[in-house]
Amino acid sequence: MQEENTKQSRREFLQKIGEIGGTAAVYQAMVSMGLLVSGEAQAGSTRQQWNERSQLLGNVEKPTVAILGGGIAGLCVAYELKKAGFPFYLIEARDRPGGRSHTIRSGSVVDEIDSQQNCNFDNEEELYFNAGPARISQTHCNLLSYCRELGVPLQALVNDNPGAFIHNSSAFGGVPVRAREVKTAIRGYIAELLSKALNAGALDSDISFSEQNAVLDVLRDYGDLSLSNFFISSTRGGLQEDSGGLTPGLANPALNLDDFFFDTSVPFTPNFSESINQSATMMQPVGGMDKIAQAFADEVVEEAYYGIEITAIRRSGSRVLIEGRADGMEGAAEVDYAIVAIPPSVLRNIPNDFSPAAANAIAQVQYANPTKIAFQSPRFWESEDDIYGGISWTDPEILQIWYPSGGFGQEKGIIVGSYLFGGTDATNFQNLSISDRIEFALAGGEKVHPQYRQNLSAGVSVAWAKVPYSLGGWSVSTPSSLLQLPDGPFLFAGDHLTYLQGWQEGAVISSLNALNNLLDLMGV
Amino acid sequence: MQEENTKQSRREFLQKIGEIGGTAAVYQAMVSMGLLVSGEAQAGSTRQQWNERSQLLGNVEKPTVAILGGGIAGLCVAYELKKAGFPFYLIEARDRPGGRSHTIRSGSVVDEIDSQQNCNFDNEEELYFNAGPARISQTHCNLLSYCRELGVPLQALVNDNPGAFIHNSSAFGGVPVRAREVKTAIRGYIAELLSKALNAGALDSDISFSEQNAVLDVLRDYGDLSLSNFFISSTRGGLQEDSGGLTPGLANPALNLDDFFFDTSVPFTPNFSESINQSATMMQPVGGMDKIAQAFADEVVEEAYYGIEITAIRRSGSRVLIEGRADGMEGAAEVDYAIVAIPPSVLRNIPNDFSPAAANAIAQVQYANPTKIAFQSPRFWESEDDIYGGISWTDPEILQIWYPSGGFGQEKGIIVGSYLFGGTDATNFQNLSISDRIEFALAGGEKVHPQYRQNLSAGVSVAWAKVPYSLGGWSVSTPSSLLQLPDGPFLFAGDHLTYLQGWQEGAVISSLNALNNLLDLMGV
Repeated sequence: MQEENTKQSRREFLQKIGEIGGTAAVYQAMVSMGLLVSGEAQAGSTRQQWNERSQLLGNVEKPTVAILGGGIAGLCVAYELKKAGFPFYLIEARDRPGGRSHTIRSGSVVDEIDSQQNCNFDNEEELYFNAGPARISQTHCNLLSYCRELGVPLQALVNDNPGAFIHNSSAFGGVPVRAREVKTAIRGYIAELLSKALNAGALDSDISFSEQNAVLDVLRDYGDLSLSNFFISSTRGGLQEDSGGLTPGLANPALNLDDFFFDTSVPFTPNFSESINQSATMMQPVGGMDKIAQAFADEVVEEAYYGIEITAIRRSGSRVLIEGRADGMEGAAEVDYAIVAIPPSVLRNIPNDFSPAAANAIAQVQYANPTKIAFQSPRFWESEDDIYGGISWTDPEILQIWYPSGGFGQEKGIIVGSYLFGGTDATNFQNLSISDRIEFALAGGEKVHPQYRQNLSAGVSVAWAKVPYSLGGWSVSTPSSLLQLPDGPFLFAGDHLTYLQGWQEGAVISSLNALNNLLDLMGV
Repeated sequence: MQEENTKQSRREFLQKIGEIGGTAAVYQAMVSMGLLVSGEAQAGSTRQQWNERSQLLGNVEKPTVAILGGGIAGLCVAYELKKAGFPFYLIEARDRPGGRSHTIRSGSVVDEIDSQQNCNFDNEEELYFNAGPARISQTHCNLLSYCRELGVPLQALVNDNPGAFIHNSSAFGGVPVRAREVKTAIRGYIAELLSKALNAGALDSDISFSEQNAVLDVLRDYGDLSLSNFFISSTRGGLQEDSGGLTPGLANPALNLDDFFFDTSVPFTPNFSESINQSATMMQPVGGMDKIAQAFADEVVEEAYYGIEITAIRRSGSRVLIEGRADGMEGAAEVDYAIVAIPPSVLRNIPNDFSPAAANAIAQVQYANPTKIAFQSPRFWESEDDIYGGISWTDPEILQIWYPSGGFGQEKGIIVGSYLFGGTDATNFQNLSISDRIEFALAGGEKVHPQYRQNLSAGVSVAWAKVPYSLGGWSVSTPSSLLQLPDGPFLFAGDHLTYLQGWQEGAVISSLNALNNLLDLMGV
């Protein structure tokens, strides 16, 4: 309540400013008090600092920089160094930019340490599978500002779709229900129970008698309760068949309380989209997430070298010696600084001259082992099930089914048949053979969509822990504040250095931090 | 509870089926029990009936039909009659198809009974303003099936955006707050109060002691409560400035309970998107809502006549005599049947030979008088305020500010500066001069966005009650079941005949109903 009181007094203060100085004065005061955070400021003004300082460099002699790793972090550093006039090169082990931001489409190759898959999707713009990051929050203002600068077209991504299914073998008789039924029942029963407690006088010390009617009004609307404060059913949860067009819309019967309050994970599922990084508006680049990596890469075509594996990262006096290998040939290059944007899961296996403390911090980072599988299919989920985008949640073995948010109404689409964040279910999936993963996803998915087997084809899967040069999905460790600082001539970058692990926004913020550190080292 | 028990026993039944017959058997049982409603069935199988019956017509001699009105209802009838091989013509008073589905862009003309506006937006694809219907629910399966058939590209429309603002002059010191702050606080305080009541034993007769811990777990997650079941604050409501990137994300302080439980409309605003027609996934055609009307119209180019005003709708024996006027010339035509898809607000002023009961029903229909205004602007709401699509809610004088859901990241966009559903505030707005409406929307909107006046230009407004050939937005009366049936050779169509008033889905369902009635009259 302490914090609330602070906030409340701020608002009273603003009201007074408004009475004296008008709307513009209120706005300025809000911004300066941090109540209205303008876009770029949310990332700790990291980008603003870099922009201002790098523009002041002028004729200052620039050091040479090697950027190790061409994922989003490395690409962002490269793009900024180019704009600021630094001599640099970017070295990437894969033959493409983007790292984990890998979009799989017709002809793509998926390498794991013990398998190789060729993607057999048809060659159409909307037939793609974002095997790595697949969503951008509107709060990811740094990444979005790069999309704006680079002209990457974005579209809304449906993350939370109340029309998609929630299925749990141990709830509702194992029958999939629409998420809107669950959400509506949760709101309804919670509001009903609270109304009852209020009327029983259980909260008289919290809410004065004179205010209780106002609260009951709010609850009635919140839960769509009857006039006598009961949750009977609500059209919010869906309409009965043959109602709602030429006849009044009749509500589906409400779900039973027991089915979601007790014994299953069902009541927790609909809350995922409340979190700040998952709630609307979510977005994606039109045509695939790798459009962002590609747009960065297009700006540094001359400076980027693909297909070169780093074999050692050495000190040479106060400078850096990078050793690498390509097509069986070995080579080395000396630069003033290295910005190391290789994930710790890979970096710790590369011989290096990092300080013991930094090397230890890198060794400590734990990685999640997410898995995904996708299929091409006629869009039966749209034409037969009225589901346009979003996610169905099912038993933990496959957990999520994603529907495409682009190309609505087209004949074909890509459906993600499973997305596991990590843990034992993901380990089980990643240990299956490529063909067994397909069967596993079909067997799990047809519990939700009986149309599965007659429609799905061209399954392609990724188990990130087995992908060379990634060896994992994202860090699950607390970000190392040590690695956020320079280690001699080495500067680190990557989403693992931020509290936005697994998000491209984290990668970009870490890049801007590394760039600011570079300016510190330069003493400018 | 009666309904719940029915549902519960259904689910138990399905579980038994599943144990015997497997998933496919469950699915078939679910469909036949109406638990899983397949797409087209939600509209009362109206379209399915028409499809099946019209395909059986074969060489049956077809009567001649006049379709009066080229809005979505008339266009849909025309499209279906063409496919079924009927001789018909469609007569529309305006010089364009679509009726109220009017998209305004560079060069568009907006006529009201006492004014005319020319739209001065720049000529770019994303610079359009859907002055009439602007959203499609994924549950609108009939309209969506036409979009699929006609190849109209659709994209997700952000309807509910927790990052947009809620502003109320009498709440929060008049300062706009993010919707996510309000939503999070409502969930938090409701969950906290209910937890407290549970722990006080106020609900022991509803929830057994042994189950209370499970319910508390659910509430803790639902409201993001502390371990001791208090709502302190939550990152769901937003992060403090300079947190969440290189440092842990710190929650904004929670809003004060009083600000939304008492005395304002604030707590009711976030519930709008729970309703079945407003909840995600919402969609829109890429480039403007009139793409649907245009796609229909493209299919009936030869049969459609624009710029003809109907002056009388007469009987001629058992047939129909239509009288009309175009460019000062008068004419008449006789047909077997007329499908009258003119809104009652206009139709009741056209001399006709409807039965007294039908004429009376048409006279009784009450119309809402919605208003909208839009402006062209640099997309400051994206680059400065992190708002991508959705709606900000403010004081009732202008009520809603809509941000575009297409063209994210582009330089310019169209912002809807006010959308009023009707009533006294709308009457006030519609009675303002065209230039005063612009000033009124700017003055209201800058309370939410102080950047308004330096950015917004090319304001264009529509007050539907003053638009010729519409004279209102949508029916607010109970649909007439009488007008859902033929009146001699006259068949009626339009969203006012359905419980989806104001939605294009209602228009389409009414058309399919009229078509089925026509087959009944033909005795096939």
